[in-house]
Amino acid sequence: MGKYSLGIDFGTLSGRAVLVDVENGREVAASVYNYDSGVIDEVLPSTGERLPHDWALQDPADYLRVLQTTVPAALAEAGVSADDVIGVGIDFTACTMMPIDKAGAPLCFDPKWKNNPHAWVKLWKHHAAQPEANQINEIAGERGESFLARYGGKISSEWFFAKAWQILDESPEVYAAADKLIEAADWIVLQLTGRETRNACTAGYKAMWSKREGFPSNDFYKALDPRLERVIDEKMSRTISPMGAKAGELIPEMARKIGLKPGIGVAVGNVDAHVAVPATTVVEPGKMVIIMGTSNCHMVLGTEPKIVPGMCGVVEDGIIPGFFGFEAGQSCVGDHFAWFVENCVPAEYRDEAKGRGISVHDLLTEKAQRLKPGESGLLALDWWNGNRSVLVDADLTGVMLGCTLNTKPEEMYRALIEATAFGTNKIIKAFTDSGVAVDEIYACGGLPEQNKMLMQIYADVTGREIKIAASPQTVALGSAMFGAVAGGKAAGGYDSIFDAAKKMARVKDEMYKPIAANQAVYAKLFAEYELIHDYFGRGANDVMKRLKGIKAEQAG
Amino acid sequence: MGKYSLGIDFGTLSGRAVLVDVENGREVAASVYNYDSGVIDEVLPSTGERLPHDWALQDPADYLRVLQTTVPAALAEAGVSADDVIGVGIDFTACTMMPIDKAGAPLCFDPKWKNNPHAWVKLWKHHAAQPEANQINEIAGERGESFLARYGGKISSEWFFAKAWQILDESPEVYAAADKLIEAADWIVLQLTGRETRNACTAGYKAMWSKREGFPSNDFYKALDPRLERVIDEKMSRTISPMGAKAGELIPEMARKIGLKPGIGVAVGNVDAHVAVPATTVVEPGKMVIIMGTSNCHMVLGTEPKIVPGMCGVVEDGIIPGFFGFEAGQSCVGDHFAWFVENCVPAEYRDEAKGRGISVHDLLTEKAQRLKPGESGLLALDWWNGNRSVLVDADLTGVMLGCTLNTKPEEMYRALIEATAFGTNKIIKAFTDSGVAVDEIYACGGLPEQNKMLMQIYADVTGREIKIAASPQTVALGSAMFGAVAGGKAAGGYDSIFDAAKKMARVKDEMYKPIAANQAVYAKLFAEYELIHDYFGRGANDVMKRLKGIKAEQAG
Repeated sequence: MGKYSLGIDFGTLSGRAVLVDVENGREVAASVYNYDSGVIDEVLPSTGERLPHDWALQDPADYLRVLQTTVPAALAEAGVSADDVIGVGIDFTACTMMPIDKAGAPLCFDPKWKNNPHAWVKLWKHHAAQPEANQINEIAGERGESFLARYGGKISSEWFFAKAWQILDESPEVYAAADKLIEAADWIVLQLTGRETRNACTAGYKAMWSKREGFPSNDFYKALDPRLERVIDEKMSRTISPMGAKAGELIPEMARKIGLKPGIGVAVGNVDAHVAVPATTVVEPGKMVIIMGTSNCHMVLGTEPKIVPGMCGVVEDGIIPGFFGFEAGQSCVGDHFAWFVENCVPAEYRDEAKGRGISVHDLLTEKAQRLKPGESGLLALDWWNGNRSVLVDADLTGVMLGCTLNTKPEEMYRALIEATAFGTNKIIKAFTDSGVAVDEIYACGGLPEQNKMLMQIYADVTGREIKIAASPQTVALGSAMFGAVAGGKAAGGYDSIFDAAKKMARVKDEMYKPIAANQAVYAKLFAEYELIHDYFGRGANDVMKRLKGIKAEQAG
Repeated sequence: MGKYSLGIDFGTLSGRAVLVDVENGREVAASVYNYDSGVIDEVLPSTGERLPHDWALQDPADYLRVLQTTVPAALAEAGVSADDVIGVGIDFTACTMMPIDKAGAPLCFDPKWKNNPHAWVKLWKHHAAQPEANQINEIAGERGESFLARYGGKISSEWFFAKAWQILDESPEVYAAADKLIEAADWIVLQLTGRETRNACTAGYKAMWSKREGFPSNDFYKALDPRLERVIDEKMSRTISPMGAKAGELIPEMARKIGLKPGIGVAVGNVDAHVAVPATTVVEPGKMVIIMGTSNCHMVLGTEPKIVPGMCGVVEDGIIPGFFGFEAGQSCVGDHFAWFVENCVPAEYRDEAKGRGISVHDLLTEKAQRLKPGESGLLALDWWNGNRSVLVDADLTGVMLGCTLNTKPEEMYRALIEATAFGTNKIIKAFTDSGVAVDEIYACGGLPEQNKMLMQIYADVTGREIKIAASPQTVALGSAMFGAVAGGKAAGGYDSIFDAAKKMARVKDEMYKPIAANQAVYAKLFAEYELIHDYFGRGANDVMKRLKGIKAEQAG
């Protein structure tokens, strides 16, 4: 009888458990649970109180329902006995955080606090802590704090201490009542194991921690707000666990609730994007993993702590133990194409697609792939949702250049795809220019499954081979791999994520190789992209910001 | 019984005669004839021979059919006797030119020549003389020819000597057989009066002539090609008639054919755009007339021969006698909006428009007019068909900047409209910076009739009042006014176009006044437009030309 591990992936709208054969990584069953409260961004469920703009909360009860529903369902579907499940790994969106009490319960479960929105989970896309993020950046800059460089020079409003400080600013009583503030990933692990662990991934990428320097000094926090001086010791923890470690063992109470065997290994919590790296077979430097979907997340391992301009973060042990995990991102990729299809595609195209029973995306792709690189004369800047890397500037906006009266929708669609490939190439260039090798690309996520033309364009633009993760459930598979490591070799699992990756992860046979003729044209187009990227993005002409300013005045 | 004059307007696809009451400018009847051969741009009718790319010919027999069909029809429709028609004025597209024999017949009427495409009329949009235009510009530049400055530094491939030289280059036998090369406007007048006249408008705007300097020197033409040394004296004429003059009297043979009284006055031939100036009441400086349709043509009168950067031309007596007529243009205005509706409007919009029984343009306008200036955050460069003024560069292309995931089709539609208004404002600025006053705007053409929002945007962007021509047939009315002047006061007409304009031309009561709050925002947006206009248009970044180069290579 085989051994199995469970990967549990907590997304923005749902959670899923995937049961995986430890021997070969085969996914034997999966179960999804859609959160009852989804994203809470309009009214607080407990009071009906309207939430301000930019708020996004969640109910941690939904996370518990995921555990209690999907784990038994996956086992039942596969006909696998709990005795044969040797470990559990979980991944979560991040920074998704909450205040908890001494017993580890979320404050929002407490009748005393449930009517206070700050007692609830702040989801990754809660953007209301921008004033706090601005102050963190300003004060860190003034003080010459070294940690800033690890984050491309800018701390996001989505991150841990911006959110923590917002709680303190707006609800000091919730802040005071909280025994701890904790990442949802670590809270789930706490529920499973009964022990608080803090994972290096979210600590490093979202909470300004590094293995070598630790957290920013108490002085820095004091400079932000005297009440924050001891925030690490009072509300956080200085004990950070590397990725690939075992957090603890499943406690009997939880084992009973979710139908697993008590005592099996539970992996240190992880982040959805980062857990995909070993799941695409990548456990060594030189191989960039890109999760391609509504946005792109780029990850690559390195052996030294390089500073890469405009990266999202670099964390030692943050992805794979023993390596520096570098992360960069593009804030809008699939979202571009969805926007285009919704807003810019004429009725004739919709009618044709409908008549042929294909999607508008497929019709546009079919037409666009008949074009040669550069044949449209178009060039776009992929900034419909700002630029995350390498400019780290949310106020940049999109550009379509080169339009003529003969310009066709499929040409604009292709130009948008090419623009996202240029954006990725700009990120790769930032890494390689900084001494972080990117020799090959490994892709996973929705887009590689859906659009071969897009993948070929990425190969041609970057001049690199692209391999595709074999599993469409890459993220959950990655968590299951960490689960198999937490289970350990003695139980039928593995000693390390390196061993697990060899056996459990796979890429498809089909790969994308750069076509020399296309590469040559895209090299010219990329040079043009860089010119306007730098002109509009690096201060030569801040027209986009001024237009946003005028827009804000006029909308006000 | 009233007196009438006839305005005959020869367009690209049809000709129309409009019968006008001389007393008050009232249009009493109109008749249209669609050319049998339309635009000949695929095969030569006489041989079936395929024409090269960029060719555009016409059959002058179509012009004669216009005269013979529409004039009697207009008189019949109105029940007006030929005895009461005192004059005829005509206007034509330009430069539309042909080779004729000693008797004034087009060479293409001659069986000996009809199979040679160079014997046919070269329509204004025949663009195959670009190599000759390039050489004219190069050699004129090297020689420091003063005439270049009158044309914004560039002679167009559409113009007279580029076309003449192409005939010589490619068919020296047609060139040799031609007694003259003549503008179609002047050829029609020759048919009506039996006399060759050359009008100052086409001579000045299209054939490098000026009242003060005449034509370029024989030396210049010799430098182009020794065989062209005496082209003016051999194939053209040095006798140029000012606008508003009488060309001659209707000859009996033609009078019979078209049902008019012989001996009535025939005005010097004119150009469609320019004849609209007095028809919108403008016969003095300070008032810019804009014909707004698929493209914009801007005309303004001045008392001195100023050099305005990037204008299309300045011609003394070329629009109104006694004044310098300045012309500038935008090569793509209504064409932008038509392109947008065809290529960029989602099915939902088409369905909504259809359901409500309105056009997609009207629906977009309805939605766009709810927006405040600057509220979309978008800024466009109106170069979908290059830039005619002030950059005089056909290789520039369109830009849409400021897109976000929230950008809506009506916002892009409005941004395109605003971009054309900024382009017009850039032209106005070029005029006023050069000492040519533009205090008010007078508009005519299709767009002012169709789109009030657009007109208000033009008023707000330019900061000027805009009056609209009362007649939707402004061009034909203008020709009829010149016809009334050719008829003369004694016959019931007028002594001058100034007198005719007072009585026959009118603007609507409704006008567009700038709204101060909008003006303030548009001033900011125009400053941004100028920045990117100059960056992409004046050599700082020739990305558009390089993209066109790559496009040409890839399409080849």
